[in-house]
Amino acid sequence: MTHTLASTPAADGYRMPAEWAHHTGCWLIWPERPDNWRLGGKPAQAAFTAVATAIAATEDVTVAVSARQYDNARSELPDTVRVVEMSNDDSWIRDCGPTFVVNDDGDVRGVDWDFNAWGGLVDGLYFPWAADDAVARKVLEIEGIDRYKAHFVLEGGSIDVDGEGTLLVTAECLLSPGRNPGLTQPEIEALLRDHLGVDVVVWLPSGVYLDETNGHVDNFCRFVEPGKVMLTWTDDPTDPQYERSAAALKVLESTVDARGRSIEVVKIHQPGPIFITAEEASGVDSIEGTLPRETGDRLAGSYVNSYIGNDVVVLPVFDDPHDAAAVAAYTELFAPRRVVTVPGREILLGGGNVHCITQQQPSGR
Amino acid sequence: MTHTLASTPAADGYRMPAEWAHHTGCWLIWPERPDNWRLGGKPAQAAFTAVATAIAATEDVTVAVSARQYDNARSELPDTVRVVEMSNDDSWIRDCGPTFVVNDDGDVRGVDWDFNAWGGLVDGLYFPWAADDAVARKVLEIEGIDRYKAHFVLEGGSIDVDGEGTLLVTAECLLSPGRNPGLTQPEIEALLRDHLGVDVVVWLPSGVYLDETNGHVDNFCRFVEPGKVMLTWTDDPTDPQYERSAAALKVLESTVDARGRSIEVVKIHQPGPIFITAEEASGVDSIEGTLPRETGDRLAGSYVNSYIGNDVVVLPVFDDPHDAAAVAAYTELFAPRRVVTVPGREILLGGGNVHCITQQQPSGR
Repeated sequence: MTHTLASTPAADGYRMPAEWAHHTGCWLIWPERPDNWRLGGKPAQAAFTAVATAIAATEDVTVAVSARQYDNARSELPDTVRVVEMSNDDSWIRDCGPTFVVNDDGDVRGVDWDFNAWGGLVDGLYFPWAADDAVARKVLEIEGIDRYKAHFVLEGGSIDVDGEGTLLVTAECLLSPGRNPGLTQPEIEALLRDHLGVDVVVWLPSGVYLDETNGHVDNFCRFVEPGKVMLTWTDDPTDPQYERSAAALKVLESTVDARGRSIEVVKIHQPGPIFITAEEASGVDSIEGTLPRETGDRLAGSYVNSYIGNDVVVLPVFDDPHDAAAVAAYTELFAPRRVVTVPGREILLGGGNVHCITQQQPSGR
Repeated sequence: MTHTLASTPAADGYRMPAEWAHHTGCWLIWPERPDNWRLGGKPAQAAFTAVATAIAATEDVTVAVSARQYDNARSELPDTVRVVEMSNDDSWIRDCGPTFVVNDDGDVRGVDWDFNAWGGLVDGLYFPWAADDAVARKVLEIEGIDRYKAHFVLEGGSIDVDGEGTLLVTAECLLSPGRNPGLTQPEIEALLRDHLGVDVVVWLPSGVYLDETNGHVDNFCRFVEPGKVMLTWTDDPTDPQYERSAAALKVLESTVDARGRSIEVVKIHQPGPIFITAEEASGVDSIEGTLPRETGDRLAGSYVNSYIGNDVVVLPVFDDPHDAAAVAAYTELFAPRRVVTVPGREILLGGGNVHCITQQQPSGR
């Protein structure tokens, strides 16, 4: 059973573990909305199925799905994946799901942040978002995990931790006017410390160019081990991404983490640039109030947007010349984990990638 | 994870345990439909909350609830009860939920029967019933319990077992034209044996007078231990219930159970008769296609319709002169279990009682 606690994780001795810490399982939400996913969501459903199947090889996977799509999801997903009914507004459980925290005894709790579709009425991506905002609580209820309710707008994709006291964020996202405009940067830092159990917050200026999440860090720069991050990069100084990546590198090079380490940066060259085709754009319903998907729009493609599972890493690839280098880098960075590639384009067309559609549930051990 | 199995429980060594066997937990569905529950379901919600709370004292309780009612149910129910989102057409999980079966190793599986709202288009109580029919599968998915899909219309309230090979049913229900009109009585018996792991099926002619379920046995006659049943009774030979109870008694007196025992019958005098008041009838929405609730209708009140929990028995009472005798009988029959009474009228107004709204999940031990 789930109790909602009045304290904070840090006060109770809890912290967010790194993604490579052992998982009980992983959560996803089944994609369906035809104003975001082309062709009624069918290509995205195949891509999500590939991701879920890959992760299910080494940890339990649960896919939350609307009542409408329950039978179809149950039919498309393999028996190794659990399916539970859950209302949702879209399929980004990294952002609307709980952030799990653990203590030294291996107990697990969850943080339920406020969710407002990446910017609410300022620059959010759809309206309403009430079903998404309820997802974290529903996940914790199903699992019987105690809950901290954070009265603070945050998405799981906007944070990345090393599990040893250091947190990566982007100012572009966490200081965006659509999230917590009433809070100062120090107030936000204090809330992050209280809810994630971290000591040092590393503020990168911005994330990936045209990332509609206001530059989520999980699409841009993530820890691969304590003292080491991977950073989306481009060698083309005329690409708008260049300045963003260079600015982040500069910050990282002058950063000391919570344990006093300097940070090694592994550059991962971006794919593309990748643009929406006319055929792809034509497959998406046009609905007032949802971010449109238009021919020629540049997508925020990135190899950093992967999932670190128990014995696998699931990496999106794009049938792109840079795929091979990304696979090689991952193979070295995450050994002995097996690198499983999945076609990432259909997920990217919806506005994110493998990391955005997954949420690990740590075991605490 | 849940696999759907192609065999049958009996073939795999599984059987339905008696309700008094140890439970992992209990499932309910939150009442809400205003064409069945008066005043928008509020009095029924209070009654269900009392039942869930009583059971939660000695086993885990999960309440399945529609998306619409999720927040309200979460708010009305205590923290000791788990709440999960699940579409439904009404709140009778005894009838639309899975029937759990166990083997000698303590493994647990579930039978997912066809559900057609107590008679489908012949004499069913509402239309549609597709959400209810999906409940059993969704429960098993959440729990990761393997599933047998029985292509056979049956409600859990129409069966009662002693856990030692004997099954009680009523012919009124199991041979009703709205359920499995294409099957003969011997064919139905064979399906019951295959899916419940029983050897002897005891056919009582009928159930409680005016029971809209076509005489579910769980409202009329149930095992309290092997070789002993409780039977709804009336001392009034002019009451239409009299003949029904007398006919059942006659069958039971000449029955030998699967272990060769004769069956002791404990009579429990019915409450009332209980009739719907004008105030009660006026609180229910009038909707084409749903069984109406009209002033003066006699309700199928019964003390047999209770829940046998791990250390408690939850018994509906009706502010009726017969309550005291029922409590006394239960106290003796189920010792050392504690008898917890709950006000049963608001549940009865919806068409059933405590047993109908609950579904135990055995632990297998």
